[in-house]
Amino acid sequence: MNRLLQCLLAVFFCSPAIAAEPLPSWNDSPSRKAIVDFVERVANQDSPDHVAASQRIATFDNDGTLWSEQPVYFQLSFAIDRVKSMASENPQWISTEPFKSAIAGDIQGVMASGKEGLVQIFAASHANMTADEFSDSVRHWLETAKHPQTGKRYHEMVYQPMLELLEYLRENDFKTFIVSGGGVDFMRVFAEQTYGIPPEQVVGSSVAAKFEMVEGVPTIVKLAQNPFVDDKEGKPVAIYQHIGRRPLLAGGNSDGDLQMLQYTTIPRDQADTTPRLGLIVHHTDAEREWAYDRESHIGKLNEAWSQANQRGWVVVDMKRDWKQIHPVRK
Amino acid sequence: MNRLLQCLLAVFFCSPAIAAEPLPSWNDSPSRKAIVDFVERVANQDSPDHVAASQRIATFDNDGTLWSEQPVYFQLSFAIDRVKSMASENPQWISTEPFKSAIAGDIQGVMASGKEGLVQIFAASHANMTADEFSDSVRHWLETAKHPQTGKRYHEMVYQPMLELLEYLRENDFKTFIVSGGGVDFMRVFAEQTYGIPPEQVVGSSVAAKFEMVEGVPTIVKLAQNPFVDDKEGKPVAIYQHIGRRPLLAGGNSDGDLQMLQYTTIPRDQADTTPRLGLIVHHTDAEREWAYDRESHIGKLNEAWSQANQRGWVVVDMKRDWKQIHPVRK
Repeated sequence: MNRLLQCLLAVFFCSPAIAAEPLPSWNDSPSRKAIVDFVERVANQDSPDHVAASQRIATFDNDGTLWSEQPVYFQLSFAIDRVKSMASENPQWISTEPFKSAIAGDIQGVMASGKEGLVQIFAASHANMTADEFSDSVRHWLETAKHPQTGKRYHEMVYQPMLELLEYLRENDFKTFIVSGGGVDFMRVFAEQTYGIPPEQVVGSSVAAKFEMVEGVPTIVKLAQNPFVDDKEGKPVAIYQHIGRRPLLAGGNSDGDLQMLQYTTIPRDQADTTPRLGLIVHHTDAEREWAYDRESHIGKLNEAWSQANQRGWVVVDMKRDWKQIHPVRK
Repeated sequence: MNRLLQCLLAVFFCSPAIAAEPLPSWNDSPSRKAIVDFVERVANQDSPDHVAASQRIATFDNDGTLWSEQPVYFQLSFAIDRVKSMASENPQWISTEPFKSAIAGDIQGVMASGKEGLVQIFAASHANMTADEFSDSVRHWLETAKHPQTGKRYHEMVYQPMLELLEYLRENDFKTFIVSGGGVDFMRVFAEQTYGIPPEQVVGSSVAAKFEMVEGVPTIVKLAQNPFVDDKEGKPVAIYQHIGRRPLLAGGNSDGDLQMLQYTTIPRDQADTTPRLGLIVHHTDAEREWAYDRESHIGKLNEAWSQANQRGWVVVDMKRDWKQIHPVRK
């Protein structure tokens, strides 16, 4: 845009109004206070702890942190739904586990076939197809599938207070990233529209891919090889490889985020005095969502919770701290 | 910053002056014209080919595109210099190739030990150390090493016209990335300060890494395993994995960039009419830099040059198109 026009617009649209109160869906709790204090401390020009905008990296887990993950990770629901829809092209599946259980919608049966079974379910629904075929299948699923308990579309099962947190951080010149055990190609289909997080700021699990010219058209093909799982110790490694900067703020909800929280917040040495924030979303609300932590198979929160006090991590109590859980459908 | 203050500053500092002419070190050539026409076409709000800012991804090769690469890739010079500096701690190297040649500064001798020799040189200088140890060693080398022919620091051997191109693109809300065969951790040490490209926008070759707590401090350790080489077909794959968006503009200088240029510019189908630009930096200036293309071992430009016309790629003739090559030392 022409610089003169930009300036005129800046003059016309600037108003003396103060910015709206941030985090409107957060109750006035210690969690909210800790977040706002931290952001003001690092973003305020006059603060002795001011941090340059280029260093304001915020990384968030996805499952259980930005959207729900019960009764199972939504991406597993996607994989199983895809297997069901592909069953007619694969008649041999009807008599072979884990496909037999998947087609019957029997999640317990699928889980009973262990890691090897899950690998097969994921290979069938995530690999040996082009990048576009895969993302189209995810897009279609998001538009049509419904959560079995709430009846909502899966992308409606996000956390309104976390959407506000992402927005608040970006208003203060943070760059918001996802660092998740979920599939990077799965999340990239909706992360920009749903979270305001563009594809280049999504970090996740992946499989290998290859480039080929198919009838003169450059094509990326996803392969069932070299899986990288962006979980636990894998998260700081993925942050190092994909971002190349240590986060200033990290948010998660389970022990899969322990190392990311440690990597973000534990000082390197005595000279490392930059303020950093670790945040854990604790599922305490059996009425409005699900309550789970130490005993859960999905999103188990045990060690990270035990270390939270000592490490100074903010533990968000969903029941106490959030006025609402999911966005209201418009 | 307080919104009111921001607005007042916008009013005070806005002047009716027109923005300075872009690309001042570029001669008025077909290359410059093609670049400016393209950027105006996609960035101008009134253009029928306007592209949303979120899609304006520009990816650039590094060696031979943003900085020089003769007589050998600068990262190889780094690796050899590191081996020399580590020689006293490794007395067995003095009688073993390729280390013997490296210590003697004999690049031909190093190359003679082939791929296996290079792997050993790189393992010794790039792996089995912490991330911080590695980046410190790169930083120190950039501050002290001099190019054997020009006597300049290596980060002074960048291309002033390309710095201006990166700046011009960013002024038009492009996000500038590096997609290079060079090491991502090597390039991240200087890319932000030298090119204005932050670490999270550097994509390159890598090795595996692991996370561990060392005396209670979270530490990333680089390992001599699982190398990923971000070259040729690897570049579109890396773009898919790390960026997740197809570039709008891609620039390179050699056949290592062929697939990235194809991936960026060849339409997917008839409906794919978004304008995209491919750019090749052709080394034609034996006086001010080096002249090489089809016959070169370093930065060979053959097939990509042959396809350039048919594909509509802009071929920048360094001798004809650039008023100066490297920045003038201040």
